[in-house]
Parts: sequence; structure tokens; C-alpha cells
Amino acid sequence: MLQNILAPKTACLLIIGNEILSGRTQDTNTRTLALALNAHGIRLSEVRIIPDIEDHIVSTLNACRVHFDHVFTSGGIGPTHDDITAACVAKAFGTTLLLHAPSFTALEQHFGPERFNTARQRMAYLPDGATPIANPVSVAPGFTIGNVHVMAGVPKIFTAMVEEVVPNLPRGAALSMKGWHACGLREGDLAEALTRLQSEFSQTDLGSYPFDRPAVGKGVALIAKGYNAAEVEQAAQAVHDLILAQGQTPISGEPADHGAAT
Amino acid sequence: MLQNILAPKTACLLIIGNEILSGRTQDTNTRTLALALNAHGIRLSEVRIIPDIEDHIVSTLNACRVHFDHVFTSGGIGPTHDDITAACVAKAFGTTLLLHAPSFTALEQHFGPERFNTARQRMAYLPDGATPIANPVSVAPGFTIGNVHVMAGVPKIFTAMVEEVVPNLPRGAALSMKGWHACGLREGDLAEALTRLQSEFSQTDLGSYPFDRPAVGKGVALIAKGYNAAEVEQAAQAVHDLILAQGQTPISGEPADHGAAT
Repeated sequence: MLQNILAPKTACLLIIGNEILSGRTQDTNTRTLALALNAHGIRLSEVRIIPDIEDHIVSTLNACRVHFDHVFTSGGIGPTHDDITAACVAKAFGTTLLLHAPSFTALEQHFGPERFNTARQRMAYLPDGATPIANPVSVAPGFTIGNVHVMAGVPKIFTAMVEEVVPNLPRGAALSMKGWHACGLREGDLAEALTRLQSEFSQTDLGSYPFDRPAVGKGVALIAKGYNAAEVEQAAQAVHDLILAQGQTPISGEPADHGAAT
Repeated sequence: MLQNILAPKTACLLIIGNEILSGRTQDTNTRTLALALNAHGIRLSEVRIIPDIEDHIVSTLNACRVHFDHVFTSGGIGPTHDDITAACVAKAFGTTLLLHAPSFTALEQHFGPERFNTARQRMAYLPDGATPIANPVSVAPGFTIGNVHVMAGVPKIFTAMVEEVVPNLPRGAALSMKGWHACGLREGDLAEALTRLQSEFSQTDLGSYPFDRPAVGKGVALIAKGYNAAEVEQAAQAVHDLILAQGQTPISGEPADHGAAT
């Protein structure tokens, strides 16, 4: 798999939120970040979804920030008692929260002096040494400290913060990805040939994903992915020819979601 | 938060799959498992999404299986070269894969002798000591070994396996959850009162979730959650009264998804 390739930059996403773990809210931030990072040559290497518990957050932050080039967090930076991310990040970095004057002023203007109560003022406190991340939706900033980028959990704000942060990171090697759909084939029909192809294209990750869609029936999407664009192109051509050799027509385009057909 | 309460059973989900980390596929298995576990008194305490890399899978499995009462895995048990979960679980447990004769026979009957090739036969190998988990969709079994439950990634099969496994686990304390929507209020309007309520109801987790829905506009969902049903009921009543005191009408029913309004 990809671990043998000239390593691109790696990233980890920590989703901090009981509401995802309880099943109340469907996470969509993983996909938003993954796609933005892909386009920038950074690989999303791990995601952890953890509860709003201080010890759990601090220990996970410290484990991940030494292990990955970048750590993104999502959630827990609002005004309520369960918003403890900024304090946890400060603790993980051995520092404290400080009033960030420009954010305080911007929030005060946004809410008006009467509604800018103590709870909302909490959102203007950032860890000492942090750089704010602009929030074009609801003003309260995220922040970057070291290699940790702290962002809101609300998807609209998370997306805006990703667009603010990711393009300014050092670019990694661009990930190339090309694939084909094979309707009427199953993973088990292709597995042995794919194993051979995988050993032939050692810098490319060949993925095989069964689908079952009402419009087209069962089939397999075969995706070649890697940081050596020329080899990805060759591997995708080989996959194309493999599908043809099995008597089916390779179909390009957006890969389908998972269905069931192994 | 909930860590101070008589601990219920805990669970961790490991989603093994490059396709989630690349943003190609939207995960839905987290929510499926979370809701099934809630109903059974087991708390989903962490989710990790990791790539199809042997070392990463084995080390994560070993870290998580000592830390949580149950570990569920999703993905990587099909017939292709990138399906390495069973081998990784065997390695984590210091054992080997063995042919599981009843599964072999069932798979052979399902595919027919001609299509039951070497790749598909791989799906009949389980770690020594594992108990198979039935797959009513496509026959290839998952399995349980120790406190690790290995399931397919395809959502339809994952769901069927969850329904097979979870009801047979020892029940934990049932999680009670009750909440109210407050249209026209923001988190910052309620934060100080919520902090007071949270300290009053120490065995209940009070969560505050902003929403912004076209039909009803902006507001906040306030959710009381915990393993002491009587206290959850009292806390929900206090939240109800808090919303009334702010001049809004508490609305019950399914909490909305995240929007943006802090």
C-alpha cells in the first residue's frame, strides 16, 4: 500500500463531540477535510471521534500532534459549558488562555454590547501563542497553535475554516486518482488479477469497492491512487484492460457509494 | 460530564478503510452502531478511522481492545488484496487464520463450485478461536474473537451484523435522553444558565447544539442525557422551564442536525 511511497504530508482529524458518538448527528466534516487535503497534497491518515471529556481530549491531542504533520480539530469552541476544546488545547501545549483583543472587539461589534455576555466573551480567549482562524459565518474564531488547527464543528463554519487554513499550508505531493466502474462483475471475480496488478504497481494503491445501485445493479469500482501520477495512469489503464478482458465495459466518472456485492 | 457516573459498558469502533479517509465514501456505520449500542446500554466512546495498513491496524487493535469493553471493526473482510482485516486481527491476538469449514461450505454453495475461486475462499478463513457472525446479505461471515467484533464495511451488511451481535452482548445501564428545541434563541443566550443547570445535575450530560433550518430558522437544541433516568427527566424539565423563561416555546421531538448559530 501507500506506506512504501515517498511520504506526503500527513494529517489527523479529531472530531470532539458527544453528539457524533451518540448517533444524534451524522458527521460530514471528515469528507470535507479529506477532499480539501487531497487537493493540496496532504493525506488524511486518521480520524478520531472522541467525547467532550478533558483528559480524553488532552491525551489524544498530545498523542496525535507528535505523530502527524497536522492535526485538525472539529467542535467544542462555542460559548457553552460543554465547549472545552480551547482550554484542552492550551493544557496540551502547557500554556493558558489569553484574551485576544481583536477577536473580542469583532465579537462585541457582532453581538452588540448587551448580548455580548460572559459566555460569549469566552469565545475571544485563545491559547497564548495561537493565531486566529477567521470565521466568516458567526465571527467566533478558530485558531492555529503549532501544528494544531482548531475549528468549529458546525459544518458550514468548519468548511469556511478549512478553506481559510488548508490553502496556506505547505503543499505536499499531489495525489493522483483514477478509476473505473465495472457493472456485472464482483470483487471475487477480479481479486486474483488485482493482486497481480498490485504487485506490479508498487507505488500505487489499488482499491476495490463493491456497489449496488438501483439504476445500474451490482458491480465493482476499481480505483488507482498514488503520488506517482505516471504510474497511477498506467495502473488505471491496466485496470481498464482487466475489466475489458472479463467481458465488461469500463465506465469512468464519479465512483459510486458502497453497496453489497463481494 | 458523564465520566463521573457509574460507568456503563464502553465500545470503540475502528473503521478500516482508505475510501473513508480519501473522502470517496461517506461513513454511515458510526451512526448505525451508536444507535444500536445506545439502545443496549453500551456507550460508543471513541471511533477511529484508519487506513488499510497492517502495522496501523494491528497497533490500533491492540491499543483499543485493552481500553474498551468492546471493539467493533468495519471493513476489509472481502476477497481482494486490500482486505487484510482478518489477518491483522489474528496477528493482534498472536494467532493464525484457520479454514472455518461451515463457512467454506456455505460460501461454496452460495457461489457455486466454479465461481468459488481462491480469492473467495479467503473469506472462509477466520482467526483460530473466533466465532463467526452471520452475513444474511452475502454469506461471507464476520467474526468475534475476545472482545473484538469484526464486521463488513458495506453498510447493508454492517447493519445486519450489528443486529446479529449487539442484542446478544451483556446489557449495560440504559441511556436516557430527552431534549427540547428552542427556536429564536442562541447558545450564548443560554450558556450561563446552562452552566448552572449542569452543576446542579451532576449525573446528567447537558448538551447544547445550535441549528439553522430553512423551515424554522435558527435556534438551539438542548439535550439531557445520562444513566440516571429520574435525574435526566428532572434536568429536561429544568431545560424546558429555562426556554420558557427566555420567552420561547420548548418544542419536543427529534433534534435537528447542526446548523450555525452561536
